[in-house]
Amino acid sequence: MIRNEETICAPATSGGGAIAVIRMSGPRSIAICGSIFFPSDRNIKFNEQKGYTIAFGEIRSGEEIIDEVLVSVFRAPHSYTGDDSVEISCHASPYIQQRIIELMISNGAVPATPGEFTQRAFFNGKMDLSQAEAVADLVASESRMAHRIAINQLRGSFSDEISMLRADLLHFASLIELELDFGEEDVEFADRSKLVEIVNKVLSVSQELASSFSLGNAVREGVPVVIAGNPNTGKSTLLNRLLKEEKAIVSDIPGTTRDAIEDTVVIDGIRFRFTDTAGLRETTDIIENLGIRKTHEKISSSSIILLVADINEGIIPLHEVLKKIRKQFSIDDKKIVIVVNKTDNDLHGNREFIFKNLVLQASETLLFISAKTGEGIDELKSILGRAVEIDRLNSENVIITNIRHYDALLKVSESLVRVKSGLDSFLPEDLIAIDIRHAIHYLGEITGEITTDEILDNIFRNFCIGK
Amino acid sequence: MIRNEETICAPATSGGGAIAVIRMSGPRSIAICGSIFFPSDRNIKFNEQKGYTIAFGEIRSGEEIIDEVLVSVFRAPHSYTGDDSVEISCHASPYIQQRIIELMISNGAVPATPGEFTQRAFFNGKMDLSQAEAVADLVASESRMAHRIAINQLRGSFSDEISMLRADLLHFASLIELELDFGEEDVEFADRSKLVEIVNKVLSVSQELASSFSLGNAVREGVPVVIAGNPNTGKSTLLNRLLKEEKAIVSDIPGTTRDAIEDTVVIDGIRFRFTDTAGLRETTDIIENLGIRKTHEKISSSSIILLVADINEGIIPLHEVLKKIRKQFSIDDKKIVIVVNKTDNDLHGNREFIFKNLVLQASETLLFISAKTGEGIDELKSILGRAVEIDRLNSENVIITNIRHYDALLKVSESLVRVKSGLDSFLPEDLIAIDIRHAIHYLGEITGEITTDEILDNIFRNFCIGK
Repeated sequence: MIRNEETICAPATSGGGAIAVIRMSGPRSIAICGSIFFPSDRNIKFNEQKGYTIAFGEIRSGEEIIDEVLVSVFRAPHSYTGDDSVEISCHASPYIQQRIIELMISNGAVPATPGEFTQRAFFNGKMDLSQAEAVADLVASESRMAHRIAINQLRGSFSDEISMLRADLLHFASLIELELDFGEEDVEFADRSKLVEIVNKVLSVSQELASSFSLGNAVREGVPVVIAGNPNTGKSTLLNRLLKEEKAIVSDIPGTTRDAIEDTVVIDGIRFRFTDTAGLRETTDIIENLGIRKTHEKISSSSIILLVADINEGIIPLHEVLKKIRKQFSIDDKKIVIVVNKTDNDLHGNREFIFKNLVLQASETLLFISAKTGEGIDELKSILGRAVEIDRLNSENVIITNIRHYDALLKVSESLVRVKSGLDSFLPEDLIAIDIRHAIHYLGEITGEITTDEILDNIFRNFCIGK
Repeated sequence: MIRNEETICAPATSGGGAIAVIRMSGPRSIAICGSIFFPSDRNIKFNEQKGYTIAFGEIRSGEEIIDEVLVSVFRAPHSYTGDDSVEISCHASPYIQQRIIELMISNGAVPATPGEFTQRAFFNGKMDLSQAEAVADLVASESRMAHRIAINQLRGSFSDEISMLRADLLHFASLIELELDFGEEDVEFADRSKLVEIVNKVLSVSQELASSFSLGNAVREGVPVVIAGNPNTGKSTLLNRLLKEEKAIVSDIPGTTRDAIEDTVVIDGIRFRFTDTAGLRETTDIIENLGIRKTHEKISSSSIILLVADINEGIIPLHEVLKKIRKQFSIDDKKIVIVVNKTDNDLHGNREFIFKNLVLQASETLLFISAKTGEGIDELKSILGRAVEIDRLNSENVIITNIRHYDALLKVSESLVRVKSGLDSFLPEDLIAIDIRHAIHYLGEITGEITTDEILDNIFRNFCIGK
């Protein structure tokens, strides 16, 4: 798996576009490039080209000219991987890219595996493991918050936090183990209350970080929102208004549109994934509709339910649906927003009556809107934002988004809970030391001080080739 | 349309992949980049950064860090466009790309129109118009021959040819017009036989170039081949064998696969587009099948027909199909290859009988193969290659692939035919001069010495954004 002696190559951009970039990294990368690249400026000796410079010239296969290209040169250790590297910027023809990669390979390079460039950066100490994982998150980020969390993680804020916790525990362990060395003399170096303090602090931070995972995961994957409600209550008008207001895209980035199976709206930098239950099966009876299994699943897995009603229907059908939802679903972890639509056309003056008489539970919010005129839309957006703890995201707190980190932090917490109870019940130091070492181990797994092939494989196989 | 004072920006790579490149070019490109890019090395003054160098640092929007990027700097006139330019290599997140482009725009850049970078290169004299067109062809090239024609054109071989013809005609025109100046004195400066010689030469080269268009177009678009034949004659086995042998792709280039509506096989550097008529409607009677309109159309528009037969059927059904094809289709411009398959299992010893008794026309070739064992496949490939004048492609001859060039060359030829007959019938010089000027004009349109907004719009609107 680890093959630092090899020189690896791969396309770094995807097909299409005007130009493509092909990456090569490893001890022979500049030499291999030098054997297929001929600078236009004959004064340039490519093999002596300095780092952070560019040369223009031709890629040739024998006499045949493959392309006119720009070659960027990076010298170890000042490169992404930490090894000598080149990046060839060529015309984005699949044929040209393939020929260049074939030339690299026939001159001694090997095709890179997914994430292998980043893996080398990790092995060469350019970044730790959680930063390496942030690279993939950053490439995949589609909203401001997902981007922000990824770039903070890439820049080491999470790593720093973990390293500090680990340092605290290492200090703790050194005190405990000092005692062990002098065990027979019955000396007590470690101040027990000091030890408890350290453990409490690390435990509390670990639990806090772990608790941020559901939020981080929602930001990363998008927050699932179900739109429920009878036909003709204005569900699609509402969705279209949300979509329209947020679609201020300045320039088309090719390849960014996808087949929409859900409608995605970014509000306050967070991606919300809207599913319209009506799309699953249109019936005139929403109660019946709720019985359909797929709708049921959609609602079950959502974080937020937008229950859309027509103000002219009055309070009775609304209350019926609400009761049904409360009964059929575990709503403890959900936010229900009751959206009474068409305030612009309140024929019977129902607004005040509904407002006064609809009895709400703690997780429920009542809101009057007009999808047509836009009344209440801003408030709806801020309710959605608050539903995902947007304040916590906007603070400087570290948010974890990665289930691997979450699992490790849970194990850290479990170990530390055992340490605490061990200290409380005056267990022997050697037993406490075992759990401390576990906690240190799991923290080390996060940043990669401790790795196994399995961990590395799991992480890097999810990268794209060329990263 | 032309706005050289503006600084333009656009993504140069398409979505997906590990990294993305964003281009900016124009007088303010380095200054605009300098206001959003902060080099990690504090000694670097970005605005003074030399051409052909790279800087590492952060793109920031106020305090917010958008990405860690590499910025390549190019100084006028040593850039693709000829203007000051930067290329920002960032993580390939659509969100990041959009933010960077927004920052460029809010700092004074404007979004580039399709092909605008190349258009600037043309206006700045970095390349002529046929070279600019070759850039788009090169990006689109998918086979060795398409690539070769495009890169030769990019490197000016076609432009040189056209310029020489134009120089000849300009010389001719100067002689004629000298006579016109001294017209009243009845002096004859131009040696008529010399003039005829020049016109003949230019006419012959123009016609030769124009005649290469059908070949060039086939290379560019792929050569349409229809596979016809009764069911169970081994059509798909044959196609699979051709596909398999040519699919020696060393590395996956993301984004290069397409929904296959036809099977494409590259043989000797030429792309052949195979359509299996059986796919259109499977009947046991190929004669009936041929009557189906769609099949008919496919065959009509093909350059090559592979008529596949089972050797065990004997000569009669084969001859019937052949007669039908000869009768129903205009086959003057087609090559028909009669492929008698299953030679590995010639139960009745039909091979020699068919070979001796099937009467062929000039455009027809008989070939015995075994799609199963591979016998005859190499010969089939070389027959396909010869069918598209592969020798002509392999020579140093210039091949034209662009219908705009073809149209212009036809007009050049028409004008020169009129010049010739004018010389033959001793028309006055001023009349001859008109046609000569026409010919010069159309040659100038090819390379862009003469352009109109319409020509430029037609050319560059077919480019992708960022090129």
